[in-house]
Amino acid sequence: DFRRAIHEVPPSFGATDTQFENYAENGIFNYGPVFDKLLQSGNAFVEQVKKSNRTPMMSVLLHGKPGCGKSSLASTLAKGSLFPYIRIISPNDLIGYNEASKASKITKIFEDSYKSPQSCIVVDEIERLIEYVPIGPRFSNLLLQTLAVLFKKSPPKGRKLLVIATTSNPDILRDMDITDSFATALNVPSISNSSDFKNVLLSLEFTQKEAEEASSYFSAPITIKQLIMIVEMARQEEGRLVDNFRSCLEDFNLRSF
Amino acid sequence: DFRRAIHEVPPSFGATDTQFENYAENGIFNYGPVFDKLLQSGNAFVEQVKKSNRTPMMSVLLHGKPGCGKSSLASTLAKGSLFPYIRIISPNDLIGYNEASKASKITKIFEDSYKSPQSCIVVDEIERLIEYVPIGPRFSNLLLQTLAVLFKKSPPKGRKLLVIATTSNPDILRDMDITDSFATALNVPSISNSSDFKNVLLSLEFTQKEAEEASSYFSAPITIKQLIMIVEMARQEEGRLVDNFRSCLEDFNLRSF
Amino acid sequence: DFRRAIHEVPPSFGATDTQFENYAENGIFNYGPVFDKLLQSGNAFVEQVKKSNRTPMMSVLLHGKPGCGKSSLASTLAKGSLFPYIRIISPNDLIGYNEASKASKITKIFEDSYKSPQSCIVVDEIERLIEYVPIGPRFSNLLLQTLAVLFKKSPPKGRKLLVIATTSNPDILRDMDITDSFATALNVPSISNSSDFKNVLLSLEFTQKEAEEASSYFSAPITIKQLIMIVEMARQEEGRLVDNFRSCLEDFNLRSF
Amino acid sequence: DFRRAIHEVPPSFGATDTQFENYAENGIFNYGPVFDKLLQSGNAFVEQVKKSNRTPMMSVLLHGKPGCGKSSLASTLAKGSLFPYIRIISPNDLIGYNEASKASKITKIFEDSYKSPQSCIVVDEIERLIEYVPIGPRFSNLLLQTLAVLFKKSPPKGRKLLVIATTSNPDILRDMDITDSFATALNVPSISNSSDFKNVLLSLEFTQKEAEEASSYFSAPITIKQLIMIVEMARQEEGRLVDNFRSCLEDFNLRSF
Amino acid sequence: DFRRAIHEVPPSFGATDTQFENYAENGIFNYGPVFDKLLQSGNAFVEQVKKSNRTPMMSVLLHGKPGCGKSSLASTLAKGSLFPYIRIISPNDLIGYNEASKASKITKIFEDSYKSPQSCIVVDEIERLIEYVPIGPRFSNLLLQTLAVLFKKSPPKGRKLLVIATTSNPDILRDMDITDSFATALNVPSISNSSDFKNVLLSLEFTQKEAEEASSYFSAPITIKQLIMIVEMARQEEGRLVDNFRSCLEDFNLRSF
Amino acid sequence: DFRRAIHEVPPSFGATDTQFENYAENGIFNYGPVFDKLLQSGNAFVEQVKKSNRTPMMSVLLHGKPGCGKSSLASTLAKGSLFPYIRIISPNDLIGYNEASKASKITKIFEDSYKSPQSCIVVDEIERLIEYVPIGPRFSNLLLQTLAVLFKKSPPKGRKLLVIATTSNPDILRDMDITDSFATALNVPSISNSSDFKNVLLSLEFTQKEAEEASSYFSAPITIKQLIMIVEMARQEEGRLVDNFRSCLEDFNLRSF
Ligand SMILES: Nc1ncnc2c1ncn2[C@@H]1O[C@H](COP(=O)(O)OP(=O)(O)OP(=O)(O)O)[C@@H](O)[C@H]1O
Ligand SMILES: Nc1ncnc2c1ncn2[C@@H]1O[C@H](COP(=O)(O)OP(=O)(O)OP(=O)(O)O)[C@@H](O)[C@H]1O
Ligand SMILES: Nc1ncnc2c1ncn2[C@@H]1O[C@H](COP(=O)(O)OP(=O)(O)OP(=O)(O)O)[C@@H](O)[C@H]1O
Ligand SMILES: Nc1ncnc2c1ncn2[C@@H]1O[C@H](COP(=O)(O)OP(=O)(O)OP(=O)(O)O)[C@@H](O)[C@H]1O
Ligand SMILES: Nc1ncnc2c1ncn2[C@@H]1O[C@H](COP(=O)(O)OP(=O)(O)OP(=O)(O)O)[C@@H](O)[C@H]1O
Ligand SMILES: Nc1ncnc2c1ncn2[C@@H]1O[C@H](COP(=O)(O)OP(=O)(O)OP(=O)(O)O)[C@@H](O)[C@H]1O
Ligand SMILES: [Mg+2]
Ligand SMILES: [Mg+2]
Ligand SMILES: [Mg+2]
Ligand SMILES: [Mg+2]
Ligand SMILES: [Mg+2]
Ligand SMILES: [Mg+2]
Repeated sequence: DFRRAIHEVPPSFGATDTQFENYAENGIFNYGPVFDKLLQSGNAFVEQVKKSNRTPMMSVLLHGKPGCGKSSLASTLAKGSLFPYIRIISPNDLIGYNEASKASKITKIFEDSYKSPQSCIVVDEIERLIEYVPIGPRFSNLLLQTLAVLFKKSPPKGRKLLVIATTSNPDILRDMDITDSFATALNVPSISNSSDFKNVLLSLEFTQKEAEEASSYFSAPITIKQLIMIVEMARQEEGRLVDNFRSCLEDFNLRSF
Repeated sequence: DFRRAIHEVPPSFGATDTQFENYAENGIFNYGPVFDKLLQSGNAFVEQVKKSNRTPMMSVLLHGKPGCGKSSLASTLAKGSLFPYIRIISPNDLIGYNEASKASKITKIFEDSYKSPQSCIVVDEIERLIEYVPIGPRFSNLLLQTLAVLFKKSPPKGRKLLVIATTSNPDILRDMDITDSFATALNVPSISNSSDFKNVLLSLEFTQKEAEEASSYFSAPITIKQLIMIVEMARQEEGRLVDNFRSCLEDFNLRSF
Repeated sequence: DFRRAIHEVPPSFGATDTQFENYAENGIFNYGPVFDKLLQSGNAFVEQVKKSNRTPMMSVLLHGKPGCGKSSLASTLAKGSLFPYIRIISPNDLIGYNEASKASKITKIFEDSYKSPQSCIVVDEIERLIEYVPIGPRFSNLLLQTLAVLFKKSPPKGRKLLVIATTSNPDILRDMDITDSFATALNVPSISNSSDFKNVLLSLEFTQKEAEEASSYFSAPITIKQLIMIVEMARQEEGRLVDNFRSCLEDFNLRSF
Repeated sequence: DFRRAIHEVPPSFGATDTQFENYAENGIFNYGPVFDKLLQSGNAFVEQVKKSNRTPMMSVLLHGKPGCGKSSLASTLAKGSLFPYIRIISPNDLIGYNEASKASKITKIFEDSYKSPQSCIVVDEIERLIEYVPIGPRFSNLLLQTLAVLFKKSPPKGRKLLVIATTSNPDILRDMDITDSFATALNVPSISNSSDFKNVLLSLEFTQKEAEEASSYFSAPITIKQLIMIVEMARQEEGRLVDNFRSCLEDFNLRSF
Repeated sequence: DFRRAIHEVPPSFGATDTQFENYAENGIFNYGPVFDKLLQSGNAFVEQVKKSNRTPMMSVLLHGKPGCGKSSLASTLAKGSLFPYIRIISPNDLIGYNEASKASKITKIFEDSYKSPQSCIVVDEIERLIEYVPIGPRFSNLLLQTLAVLFKKSPPKGRKLLVIATTSNPDILRDMDITDSFATALNVPSISNSSDFKNVLLSLEFTQKEAEEASSYFSAPITIKQLIMIVEMARQEEGRLVDNFRSCLEDFNLRSF
Repeated sequence: DFRRAIHEVPPSFGATDTQFENYAENGIFNYGPVFDKLLQSGNAFVEQVKKSNRTPMMSVLLHGKPGCGKSSLASTLAKGSLFPYIRIISPNDLIGYNEASKASKITKIFEDSYKSPQSCIVVDEIERLIEYVPIGPRFSNLLLQTLAVLFKKSPPKGRKLLVIATTSNPDILRDMDITDSFATALNVPSISNSSDFKNVLLSLEFTQKEAEEASSYFSAPITIKQLIMIVEMARQEEGRLVDNFRSCLEDFNLRSF
């Protein structure tokens, strides 16, 4: 494993403090009722795991378009649980490890959670974790099987565990028969109406007037991550912000291939 | 094998005492005649193995939807046999072992059983044990072949062996030509009528009146595991239990993807 | 190879005495003219190998449904040949060995046979020996090629060799172009008429009257192994043997999936 | 890895000075408005990364026909950024390294970039880097997954990173679900009109008159690399340059297979 | 390689004396004009290699049904060439060797031949040598590529080499693009008319009268190997030889599956 | 690698002197204007590499039917360049080396060429070098990728390199997307008219009269290698040369399968 050469002393994997910094970098904008309900559902799962003895283990799958905010939402729910043991398992932290090492690190995080009275584990971008690619298709069956068992395995008597997993590709998870391992699933939507669109722009420091004008250019669902990028592009150019925004939005749609 | 790093001294695999604790965590509810007949058939196999000399070895396949109670039933039958040697082989206890180690551990349990006058081995979730995934499809042929032989191989003269295997996916076992290795098969049903539905709710501490009202919302087959989860969701919310139950049942059906 | 850990001193593989005990455990019932003719053909091959110098090597393939009695017949023919060197190669004795070790053990048995003036080798369940599974399909090409050559290779001048192989799946052997390696083939039938059916029941200690009544329930071909199992099920229950037999036969047909 | 035998002391991989020499060997001709706009877009991304705090990381995909000038443009943008850390990752420098070593070297370059306030990394010929071949199709999933994560992973707080990747085969990248890892994409066009064609010839030291006549032979889009080669062929022959050019252009089109 | 355990001192592979004994065990019957012409063509290749300097290397492919006599003919031609170096490469002698060892042994035989002024190498059953199986299909590409090069590679100046290869499956060789490696090909026919049929029976010690009567049962092409086997079967039974022959011939056709 | 056992001290791979001996063994016949033009084109590439500074690297693909003379032409062009460094990379010299060793040897030859002011490398039979077989299809992706990069990679400033590759199967190279690595391609034709046919026969020492008569039998394109073989066959037989030639030509067409 070449990784060893790079980090003689690897940082403690998935540790809370530094890791959560990299999520929800631009904060969480409460852009409307759709998002509100989503947040509420997420928090309800936290409560159930905390209180019910018949369901001491729950695993939830967050799914939605690339950039819709899955990772940010998952990490926010985990942090908000205030459980003594919270961790994020992310492909970003596993570059350069081989299948077996990845499986080992993931398993370790779950086994450690079994020692804490209450735990929450975020498993981010399952399809990337299992190294999925549609051509073939190929993926790591070792990682898939490891996750499939861990998503379903109860912690020891008296311990509680909430697992929040994310994916941009729920269809292939179903094709892999792994969705039965989850107790339930939640869809994270794109920005799909001009009111939500306007609210996001306001959060991005558009004035009320700018936001109103700009939101009239809303024509098709767009993810929150893309919207942030387009606003930033617009800000780099000279001229009226809203005009720049309009042309950047158009360019973006053309360039997408 | 990374496992070695995690457990220098692995616990005795498949040992009786601690392991049975993790099965039928919510007990076995005798929810009606359908379940009664199932239990009776299971016990009849125990008797035949105990008494017949022409069939000293029997292997039975329990199949049914995810969450229908296969693992709980299998472990209950095994425990109830009172055979001197009983074991559970489960993917939960094999995370992190490679193909060859898994095959070795499984074989060891069977070989040990050949030394006991009467034995019962539960082989839980065959499709997960063989690391099956429909895409490809992929699975461990080493584990499949090992199981196919073990499910059919007679113990030495005078020894008796009952094998109870479970699967949520009997079709792929047939596609793999492994069903011929079983002497027979039993279907574990979902909760499929409102009377059984009501009985389960009663077991979950609904009052007679609550159960009656709630069972009027029964519309489609549901597994016992899902029903328990929905009741627990309902219990976390404020308001009338039956109303909460109703809305949780509806939400559940919508969320399923 | 994990096997090494299990058996430091492996028993002498394929040795005659203990091994033949595990075949034809319930004896060979001469249930009628169909079986008679089959036995005669088998014995004719034994004679030809013994006497002809132009065909010092013959390989025969026994094929038929799972449980029709192939293994019992093959071992009975081998034992009956009274050749100085007789061996059974069976997947039951090869659990836990890897491809190369299996190939080595099989080759060793053939090479040892070349030192005996007359030999008979049973190769049981070819499809399992080569680890065949229809999904993929997958199998060990090393084992397949090894067998394909051994089934055709003549022993040294003056030595005689009869190979009796069994399979439940002759079609896939043909698809693998391995049938050309056999000199000829014999079909082992299921119990296909009520007279043969009755004779089997008589051999299983039904009275003449019981057998007569019970054989009226014969409706479709059934293998001898299944028939023995159903009789044993019937014997465990209380009540009239023939009634129990009838209901067990019905249950069996329903349960089969 | 056989490479070790060849270079006991490998040159510092991807180092700036020597490496940039091998790109844009024939310079960059500003052949018309199409190219102008392209260059401007490229430079805009450099600016955005430099200034925006909400998008500290951007990855752009340059795609176009083989020989259209992707590598030359990418290296020119990188050099022009004047960022303290600029690197080129190219298959040319990775011949003879195995998958794992390639992944390790690529990861190292990204990790080093995280230590610089502003970085630009060119990832040239992705399809060759991942060892893609359409037959099969085959490719290194390890390299693909490594790149997919690196193209999306943010640098630590306060650091900026621009990634410019090139490909001649954007379709297969989409088939591999890797395009979602890019923030945006730019098409690098072929020479597609006779005015641009003439400008390139002028840059290649045709006289105004020669260029005018020669550009009348423009009939179909041609890449800049091919045009340079044809001019060089024409220069080796005796006779009028423009006549030679015409016949070389015709020959080229015929020979292409 | 398990082989090492079996033969500490392997016999000199492909050595002339003992090996040729195992071919044409029942001699070569000159059963008619078809065979005569075949033998003549074979001998013509021997002559050409011996005399021509422009074609110091020739490779011929003998193809025909299983049992038609390919191996016997090839070994007879090789022996008849009286070249100082003759060898047979056969799967029978390569059981238990892995791909690389097989390739090494085969290459060694060719390299040794380059040291002899005139050589003839028989390469028997190519499809088995390359471990071909139609399911998949699978085969050893290492062995295939090794043979493809060796079948075409010229010996050093002044050396002569004739290669005679056999196959029952010329179609798959063509599918593998390996037939271009052969200079030419010859078909070895089955016994296809009653006159040839009668001549074979005469060679097998039928009286003129018996042969005449028996040949009236000829109905479809049969290979010489099968015909020999059927005669031997007939000889084991009691009664008139020709009657036994007739019934064995019929049985054979029925049993074939 | 078994090769090590065979050649403790391998001959210097691809070395000029001995290796060129094995090519164009029967010389190069200038059989007509078609060949003349081909030779001229080949030499033009040599000139361009020698003189142009804008195209210091050229790679040409020679393609044509098996036996059309590709290897002979390529080696003749290389030798004729009089460049200080010329090499042939051929599958004939790589038997028994594994993928990685082959890749290493090939890379070494290219790296050595980068040290010479002017170099010409023949890469013979690409499809065999990459171990291509249409069934599967299979090939060495390591070798393919190595070649694809080397065919396109420029030598250091001031060095010149001409690569001449050959293949009988340009279609699969296109399917593999490797043709874009070549600057251009040349077709090597078969003998396709009776005048060329006659000229080849004259070169093979037919008298003018014999050649004239024999060329009247020309009916379909034939490669030069096949024509040489047929003439040699005819020379071995007794009788009139031209009659023998006619019958050998006919036989050849029939035997081809
Ligand atoms: N309500 C919100 N929900 C989620 N993210 C939000 C919200 N409001 C603002 N954001 C910002 O939007 C961005 C969402 O990006 P994030 O990486 O979470 O999306 P993602 O769905 O995980 O994307 P990907 O599919 O690429 O992994 C973050 O920068 C986050 O700070
Ligand atoms: N009659 C019953 N049969 C089985 N399980 C019951 C019964 N009554 C209550 N239960 C409870 O229902 C749950 C059944 O879950 P179990 O894990 O056995 O289902 P399963 O079919 O094995 O699920 P999976 O397909 O996910 O493995 C357990 O909590 C068990 O205690
Ligand atoms: N005439 C008979 N032929 C074969 N087996 C018989 C006969 N009479 C009784 N038996 C009994 O029937 C059973 C046949 O089982 P056996 O294992 O030989 O079948 P099989 O075809 O090899 O099954 P499988 O396909 O599962 O390997 C044995 O218990 C044997 O003792
Ligand atoms: N405006 C331009 N843009 C790009 N390259 C140019 C331009 N003007 C001249 N060139 C020259 O054209 C050639 C372009 O080749 P380059 O290798 O960059 O193309 P490419 O698209 O990367 O090709 P490939 O697909 O083979 O990798 C270089 O020699 C470069 O110096
Ligand atoms: N004219 C003949 N040509 C070939 N074999 C003959 C001839 N006459 C008799 N025989 C005998 O016929 C048998 C031919 O068997 P052989 O093994 O050579 O066939 P084969 O085509 O190689 O079979 P397989 O396809 O199984 O390898 C041998 O026993 C040989 O002695
Ligand atoms: N004009 C010619 N061009 C090429 N070869 C010629 C010519 N005249 C005579 N020859 C002879 O023809 C033969 C051509 O064989 P060569 O091996 O070069 O063909 P090839 O196309 O490489 O074949 P293969 O596809 O089998 O590799 C050689 O013996 C060569 O000496
Ligand atoms: Mg995310
Ligand atoms: Mg279960
Ligand atoms: Mg059997
Ligand atoms: Mg490029
Ligand atoms: Mg043969
Ligand atoms: Mg050639």
